[in-house]
Amino acid sequence: MESGRLEAFSDGVFAVAITLLALDLVVVHPGHGPLADQLTDHWPSFAAYVVSFLTIGIIWVNHHALFRNIAHVDRPLLFLNLLLMFFVVSIPFATSTIADYLRDGGQDATLAAAIYEGVFLCMGLSFALLFWWAIRRDHLKEPLPPGAVWSAIVRFGIGNVGYLAAVGIAFVSPAGALLVSGLLAVYYMFEQTPGRRQTGGKADASSAGQETSSSQDF
Amino acid sequence: MESGRLEAFSDGVFAVAITLLALDLVVVHPGHGPLADQLTDHWPSFAAYVVSFLTIGIIWVNHHALFRNIAHVDRPLLFLNLLLMFFVVSIPFATSTIADYLRDGGQDATLAAAIYEGVFLCMGLSFALLFWWAIRRDHLKEPLPPGAVWSAIVRFGIGNVGYLAAVGIAFVSPAGALLVSGLLAVYYMFEQTPGRRQTGGKADASSAGQETSSSQDF
Amino acid sequence: MESGRLEAFSDGVFAVAITLLALDLVVVHPGHGPLADQLTDHWPSFAAYVVSFLTIGIIWVNHHALFRNIAHVDRPLLFLNLLLMFFVVSIPFATSTIADYLRDGGQDATLAAAIYEGVFLCMGLSFALLFWWAIRRDHLKEPLPPGAVWSAIVRFGIGNVGYLAAVGIAFVSPAGALLVSGLLAVYYMFEQTPGRRQTGGKADASSAGQETSSSQDF
Amino acid sequence: MESGRLEAFSDGVFAVAITLLALDLVVVHPGHGPLADQLTDHWPSFAAYVVSFLTIGIIWVNHHALFRNIAHVDRPLLFLNLLLMFFVVSIPFATSTIADYLRDGGQDATLAAAIYEGVFLCMGLSFALLFWWAIRRDHLKEPLPPGAVWSAIVRFGIGNVGYLAAVGIAFVSPAGALLVSGLLAVYYMFEQTPGRRQTGGKADASSAGQETSSSQDF
Repeated sequence: MESGRLEAFSDGVFAVAITLLALDLVVVHPGHGPLADQLTDHWPSFAAYVVSFLTIGIIWVNHHALFRNIAHVDRPLLFLNLLLMFFVVSIPFATSTIADYLRDGGQDATLAAAIYEGVFLCMGLSFALLFWWAIRRDHLKEPLPPGAVWSAIVRFGIGNVGYLAAVGIAFVSPAGALLVSGLLAVYYMFEQTPGRRQTGGKADASSAGQETSSSQDF
Repeated sequence: MESGRLEAFSDGVFAVAITLLALDLVVVHPGHGPLADQLTDHWPSFAAYVVSFLTIGIIWVNHHALFRNIAHVDRPLLFLNLLLMFFVVSIPFATSTIADYLRDGGQDATLAAAIYEGVFLCMGLSFALLFWWAIRRDHLKEPLPPGAVWSAIVRFGIGNVGYLAAVGIAFVSPAGALLVSGLLAVYYMFEQTPGRRQTGGKADASSAGQETSSSQDF
Repeated sequence: MESGRLEAFSDGVFAVAITLLALDLVVVHPGHGPLADQLTDHWPSFAAYVVSFLTIGIIWVNHHALFRNIAHVDRPLLFLNLLLMFFVVSIPFATSTIADYLRDGGQDATLAAAIYEGVFLCMGLSFALLFWWAIRRDHLKEPLPPGAVWSAIVRFGIGNVGYLAAVGIAFVSPAGALLVSGLLAVYYMFEQTPGRRQTGGKADASSAGQETSSSQDF
Repeated sequence: MESGRLEAFSDGVFAVAITLLALDLVVVHPGHGPLADQLTDHWPSFAAYVVSFLTIGIIWVNHHALFRNIAHVDRPLLFLNLLLMFFVVSIPFATSTIADYLRDGGQDATLAAAIYEGVFLCMGLSFALLFWWAIRRDHLKEPLPPGAVWSAIVRFGIGNVGYLAAVGIAFVSPAGALLVSGLLAVYYMFEQTPGRRQTGGKADASSAGQETSSSQDF
């Protein structure tokens, strides 16, 4: 498979980035007051951890779905994928920054939340770019039906407009911005599920499920 | 293979999480007294390291055994796997917390041990959920015989009841809770070995071993 | 495929090294002045992060292109690849050193920049060595046409002479050295793109593109 | 391939462990004197980094060679591999400990060097155990000729006796122990190369080279 190594490298980056998120949780140490108080005080760490984990997880699921249908990889696609990885790799930094500054409020919390949502926005835009290049340059194993392209555009639009809105909300309420990106992650998690109902049937699940999924999964 | 990338991503997460455990060991530095004393003082770090390493190792072995028999992957399965990864990724944090607080005793040690065992419990429950979904939705390459399903339920039950008990024991004896999860890991390590005796035979080992293992390994 | 595990191991190293770069970005913490000032003050961290990310990304793309055409792997090739990995793994250290010292100027900034460019130079030389061994020992699936060998030598030459120059420039202007390695990364990113134009055609893109790419991609 | 996921997981652990080694190098920071002096003072960090990198690299090469000839994997083999991974994962901790304490001399340097060489010894012993299990349980694709078994035993013997000696030497000269493990790594790097001469021939290199390598590479 042509895209095998691109996927292996990307999986490695996703796996390291998602695991490094938890490094930021190690914010508690003996001698800084009771553990329970420290954990409570650091609620933004845990909230940001959950949101970032879900977001990286979802972008991994989408990456998986996109490349399952890609027949071969050219050099621009490698670099567009690197661009996506650039923002994935930046998420642990953005997460620990919002985790550190959200509680303090003020301009620092605003800036930290704007950076956090800005990284998500850039990640969403670079994924859309990757998707657009893959369609435009005929790299797909089977062409997408027009409906699928439209629904993909709508889905990308919701995500990117949502993150753009979250950057704006950061200037009003940094915690609100974090909440918006959490809701977007939950939306993406459940949005797809109904369309998969048909794969539950016992009869021809394995073949039919595979057939339809390639045009619906992103 | 349909589940190839899910496995590659999961292997990456397992590998990073298991290696990050050892980062928590870097607790000794010049200028804090003799090295021997520091190492002795930090025994909970080493004990928690061994228990967490074994537990992640065993869940990897089980993940390996489960997915070897999975024919294809649907979107809910991807997200159930992400849920499992969420708790795997949390283990280094939980390990360093119990390592830091166990020695001090008191409420902090109790809370740290309860979190530690709670993460293991959630990991066990999410693995059971993944297993149940895989069976229920007919994703297996070959259906499990009823006996295998029952023995899997019994094994999951022992693990999850054991971790639940460990959460309770944490309120009486945090070190005792750590010991219980260590014993559970040892139990899972050896529990399976007798059943594999037949693969030692020289004659038809490779084919028979493979045949039987798919229904026995989890 | 003979080189499968070498690639998997290398992809792991590339993925971890590229993700660890971002760990160095966690230079800001509450209580050290406004976040905006801290981010501005740490501009060398972000500049070095971008340059190192691009450089690792490009060496990964080249590694990918080289090994796609390698038929089998011998023991010296494994160790030459390890040598390359040695310098890849050193990049996060070199990056955080230049990020820490560039702003201060003086001899420390010079030394930090010389180390940084020196690591890139060693990485470039060990990649050239790997390439030379692969050609000399007839490990390629299809022999390179003489023109491809020459253009590869020219490309390696530009990179390695460029990094050698950057080591020298470090003694005059440490920031200038960083800029030169950034420009080299951009050059490598775009240098190849024109030659790929023919893969855009709708007709025989997938087969022809693959055919030609193996002799042009490095 | 039966052992595919074991190898993928192991490659991940090797890759993360080898890359984390370089994290220990980040020992220099502005405000602790000139950078050149700090780098000179921290020579044990760099020496230990090189030795640990080479040692992990060699064990990876050997792991690669062993599993290339393994037909299928049973549960004990999974756990013996986990045991090996346990010591691989401990190397970054042991490396940073010897790096921190070697320069100070005294009992702490002795203990740090003994731990460092002890981890290498345990890694060597667990690799030998893995090898012995693979042979004894007939997991190999093609049985080793008796000569190959003997030369493997000799090679393992040299390594493990060497590391045992290094543990002893640590009590006399910690730096000497580090040197011994460095020499062992260099020995393992070059020991195999002469035997590969025959693969250089242009004629039947690819098939003959592969044939002979499976019985010679460990």
